[in-house]
Amino acid sequence: MQRPDTPFVPLAPAELDALKTEATAWFTTLRDRIVAALETLEDEATGPFHADAPAEAGRFEKTPWLRTDHTGQPGGGGTMAILKGRVFEKAGVHVSAVHGEFAPEFRAQMPGASEDPRFFATGISLIAHPWNPNAPTVHMNTRFVATTRTWFGGGADLTPVLDRRRTQDDPDSLAFHTAMKRACDAHAPAADYARYKAWCEEYFYLPHRKEPRGIGGIFYDYHWTGDPAADLAFTRDVGGAFLDAYPAIMRANMAKPWTEQDRIEQQVRRGRYVEFNLLHDRGTIFGLKTGGNVASILSSLPPTVRWP
Amino acid sequence: MQRPDTPFVPLAPAELDALKTEATAWFTTLRDRIVAALETLEDEATGPFHADAPAEAGRFEKTPWLRTDHTGQPGGGGTMAILKGRVFEKAGVHVSAVHGEFAPEFRAQMPGASEDPRFFATGISLIAHPWNPNAPTVHMNTRFVATTRTWFGGGADLTPVLDRRRTQDDPDSLAFHTAMKRACDAHAPAADYARYKAWCEEYFYLPHRKEPRGIGGIFYDYHWTGDPAADLAFTRDVGGAFLDAYPAIMRANMAKPWTEQDRIEQQVRRGRYVEFNLLHDRGTIFGLKTGGNVASILSSLPPTVRWP
Repeated sequence: MQRPDTPFVPLAPAELDALKTEATAWFTTLRDRIVAALETLEDEATGPFHADAPAEAGRFEKTPWLRTDHTGQPGGGGTMAILKGRVFEKAGVHVSAVHGEFAPEFRAQMPGASEDPRFFATGISLIAHPWNPNAPTVHMNTRFVATTRTWFGGGADLTPVLDRRRTQDDPDSLAFHTAMKRACDAHAPAADYARYKAWCEEYFYLPHRKEPRGIGGIFYDYHWTGDPAADLAFTRDVGGAFLDAYPAIMRANMAKPWTEQDRIEQQVRRGRYVEFNLLHDRGTIFGLKTGGNVASILSSLPPTVRWP
Repeated sequence: MQRPDTPFVPLAPAELDALKTEATAWFTTLRDRIVAALETLEDEATGPFHADAPAEAGRFEKTPWLRTDHTGQPGGGGTMAILKGRVFEKAGVHVSAVHGEFAPEFRAQMPGASEDPRFFATGISLIAHPWNPNAPTVHMNTRFVATTRTWFGGGADLTPVLDRRRTQDDPDSLAFHTAMKRACDAHAPAADYARYKAWCEEYFYLPHRKEPRGIGGIFYDYHWTGDPAADLAFTRDVGGAFLDAYPAIMRANMAKPWTEQDRIEQQVRRGRYVEFNLLHDRGTIFGLKTGGNVASILSSLPPTVRWP
């Protein structure tokens, strides 16, 4: 795998354009599949449902948005899709394809942007907060970024919200890790599962609480072998792994009864999720500072939360 | 008023020691008065109480804590006092007196610390989140800091949680502003009310939402005239202004009925409070990064919150 500090061979312009188009198309396809999968769970569920949940199966509502670059020029946009259902208290699946120039204060931190501030980024971002405390919260996000360099990034991590389920030998943890390992192993050695798993554990950590956000998953960035088809295929497989793992985890948990104490524990754990996203998450902070769509970015925040 | 970039005449060591002692004693006295005032409100209240509130009048629970400086040496400590009552869903009134050395990465941002990293800081910090959405959330915090320089800082601001009450001509806003103006005017021109009010409005602002946190108040920092008695007297008067204003505002609101919709609006507004504290509040971020007491710092976060 190429790191930002290694020699980089740029794609030919036509090849880069094709990759931008193909990556964007894939993220939309994946969004459609995830929307269908989560709506199917809404349909299939037979309860128990929370007293405050809607009676009917939920459906995603899509809201397109346009971005203005910091230079004042049009800068692409995206579609926010939010579901408020009877299985998912809130789930957001967002796609965007944005372009423009990085503001001067961000150029140093983005590989390839100090030479030329223009960028293109396309991706998908998902967070799902189930009503049922037995069912884990999940995040998945993959993207393709082009500056004078090009790379893929992303990851997926699982956050069980009950302490008794936040173990590495819980069936949900095992299923999630297995799916992510399979996606990486199919693209080894470039997609180094051990490294991407460790990166996830390092990244999704709350230093002030001295605790992990969840049970882990994978996290990767600056993934670029120089073979666009192979790198896009890896990122496709991460999306596929999510679809293999998470709906099955939901089916295994969504009919389990819970207590009011479980629900409170879930809402307290969600507070840690908020702390991570607002204090530490680079994507959230970067998005808010670079004119991202505030509604999409903050749709990651859980619907009901407690700090007792 | 002296700013950090103006010539500074240090206090004699004995005078500095006396000021540290006197300021610390004042913050404890103020804490005791505030604890008594809020507990009196708990006693006096006749409802309506929230269904989830305790039946009995709440009392503050005090928890002392000790700080270890980043050098590994003892670094002072404080007392966290938390009330979970029938009027206040959560209120925290914390005092601390800490000392040590600023870690290298913080020395440049603290006046007087680049010459010598040793510091002393004593202060009080309060946030109250009432159950009743008609009653505003409030924050007050004052402190004395000594590096090679010395100064007072602090402020107080009011956050009504219902849109219809978030106006400058609301009786609560008028009462709060009047009290803070009186505290400043008694110490003019050093305590410049117009400037400290504007500073508050600039500081307690959510740029990503393009909205203020509340209706304002005062915010000041690096307040130092060279006369320790006068500067401590101003900070005492800010505490006194809080005690004049907030319990009266609570009495004017705490018996008003509310709707479930009001309660939801309150919890959504509290989400903005969380966003401000975790994304922007210097005290929160600085405290978490410098080994402050996590429980005290994050006790500012509201007890129940919604991001719908």
